[in-house]
Amino acid sequence: MYPASAAGMFTANRVKAAPVLVSRRHLESGKTFRAIVANSGCANACTGRRGIRDAEGTCSAAAKLLGIAVPEVFVASTGVIGQALPAGKLKRGLARLAPLALSGRPGEKNAVEAIMTTDLVPKSAARELTIDGRKITVWGCAKGSGMIHPSLTSSREFHATMLAFVLTDANIAPQALNLALKRSAERTFNRVSVDGDTSTNDTVFVLANGAALNKRISGRDGNFARFERTLFSVCDDLAKQIARDGEGATKSVEIEVRNAGSENSAKRIAETVATSPLVKTAIFGGDANWGRVMAAAGRAGVKFDPGKVDVYFGPLRVAENGAAARYSEAKAKKILGAKDIKIMLDLHSGRGSSRYYTCDLSFGYIRINADYRS
Amino acid sequence: MYPASAAGMFTANRVKAAPVLVSRRHLESGKTFRAIVANSGCANACTGRRGIRDAEGTCSAAAKLLGIAVPEVFVASTGVIGQALPAGKLKRGLARLAPLALSGRPGEKNAVEAIMTTDLVPKSAARELTIDGRKITVWGCAKGSGMIHPSLTSSREFHATMLAFVLTDANIAPQALNLALKRSAERTFNRVSVDGDTSTNDTVFVLANGAALNKRISGRDGNFARFERTLFSVCDDLAKQIARDGEGATKSVEIEVRNAGSENSAKRIAETVATSPLVKTAIFGGDANWGRVMAAAGRAGVKFDPGKVDVYFGPLRVAENGAAARYSEAKAKKILGAKDIKIMLDLHSGRGSSRYYTCDLSFGYIRINADYRS
Repeated sequence: MYPASAAGMFTANRVKAAPVLVSRRHLESGKTFRAIVANSGCANACTGRRGIRDAEGTCSAAAKLLGIAVPEVFVASTGVIGQALPAGKLKRGLARLAPLALSGRPGEKNAVEAIMTTDLVPKSAARELTIDGRKITVWGCAKGSGMIHPSLTSSREFHATMLAFVLTDANIAPQALNLALKRSAERTFNRVSVDGDTSTNDTVFVLANGAALNKRISGRDGNFARFERTLFSVCDDLAKQIARDGEGATKSVEIEVRNAGSENSAKRIAETVATSPLVKTAIFGGDANWGRVMAAAGRAGVKFDPGKVDVYFGPLRVAENGAAARYSEAKAKKILGAKDIKIMLDLHSGRGSSRYYTCDLSFGYIRINADYRS
Repeated sequence: MYPASAAGMFTANRVKAAPVLVSRRHLESGKTFRAIVANSGCANACTGRRGIRDAEGTCSAAAKLLGIAVPEVFVASTGVIGQALPAGKLKRGLARLAPLALSGRPGEKNAVEAIMTTDLVPKSAARELTIDGRKITVWGCAKGSGMIHPSLTSSREFHATMLAFVLTDANIAPQALNLALKRSAERTFNRVSVDGDTSTNDTVFVLANGAALNKRISGRDGNFARFERTLFSVCDDLAKQIARDGEGATKSVEIEVRNAGSENSAKRIAETVATSPLVKTAIFGGDANWGRVMAAAGRAGVKFDPGKVDVYFGPLRVAENGAAARYSEAKAKKILGAKDIKIMLDLHSGRGSSRYYTCDLSFGYIRINADYRS
């Protein structure tokens, strides 16, 4: 277990789970990191002081078993809010896992499955790049299906639960790693919404152990840019997988806003359309209901001229200058019948653009969430 | 048809329907008002210049038939966005209605039913008060079931469609009527949410024709206060009826936030809990899932100490100091099984309080909105 540089981002929700608080403290005080302990089933959120003690206890137990320092361990939890962590069970599990972790045998498949809650499919992505003739791998995994609307931040003011862990053998300085993660997460994990409900537990870690032995990436040079692009690609892939596996989802949807007054305006409109129940039920029903798209855009709290807006479903322009375009309902129906749908709004009023990944809102979402205390 | 003083509030959605734009112009330029023409089925929103002409044409036709001035007529529409108003059909209808309107015979029952869209029940409320020995009646009606999250404003920057019309025989100056409406709407119509989707067409009118012959209410005196309380009571009754008849609703829910840092903070937390799909599906499922309530509160963008928050379902305290309280799950289940549910959050961090009216999120909502182009 090489000591690794790390970067992390956590939920901006004001109600933060104990593992978020403990991991953040470790990240701020530590220099090297070697382990992430994640559990599903119990979020260890809204659990008061006992929750903090349980999260710390998990780190201590793992550190002892692995022969590493306590602050080298991160914790992350996902599951029901308000219930105490079954700390004894967790420690017994750790005792069984530690020899496997120390053996160096690959265990990522089990890890990816172990963190699933309402997820139907395990989520991982890998990319390679070469720097200085050294091959570098960036591998990541994630879980997340409901309570998904991450608003991750690296500041102390941070926001389902989405957990994402990225591991790489790149040799990269912590500041550079942190910058690459911040910029990547902002345009990937912070652009996914299943239900608009930001969790108390959202957590992303990137650990970089340097085993590739490339020349250390430390500034914003060409090698940094290439590493960042690769990290972005892994995060983007995971973000799309989360949207596609949203609770009850029958379709994945990408909302793109072009030519808004600013990138932030574009983001707010994309986010409002992506979280509109009326837009999402229309997509479930296969209805190219662009009027609902316009109405959602109009409540985003952003200035724009509705009379200039064009709306597209896939390549089909359904609204032009804020009013109905001539289009074939048969073509629209075909586009809306596909598994992957893209809605684009062109505001014709600036140069800001943004995207959001989401899914439709179906009977399945209601079934899952009316049944399950999560 | 007495000439009436009027006050109006309209949607703050940036995408405003043609009838909103035309009615706002009439309200700003006119002094007296005598008619409201409302239609359901077509919103006349996102209809460009033609939409404006159609709304103006409706006013002209009504004015001619009733023998009144064009700016004395208000228009309001609700229904599908992006389709042209069937202006000919509307005018033929007006020609049949005008003699009834001029006859002075009561027609409010038909009017209330005519404006329904996905509403299951007609909504009206009436109150009486006495000023200077004169009996005054305040009667109101409303429609609204989906695309309900009004954000009404009396400024030019204004936000389902919710339509609400209040008629009174009070003698009251326009400025006083406007103030009473603004203050009442802010704590009633602007505190209702079915699905978080603010419409392009939300409109509230109050017409006061002075037929009660009370001494004119013009300043903020005791009589104004009594009139405002009565108007508030009518608006509050209508707002609750809208939440109870929300699309697919099986339960009505009141969210109350107490002791927040400010009234605005309390409002934002109540609004976020009231629009959380996870909270609303839990209520549909009869699950006292206070963890979801805490998580929603935490993403409201408001500062508070999660460690001080108590959460109640009805009279039952389910969370204390931000963690699980001891309570009987059987009692919680009984409370959650009722038709009317109240969730209260006590933040213990100030004096701000607010409420929001909403409903649960059920299979019915999906069925209605995946089927219907609205």
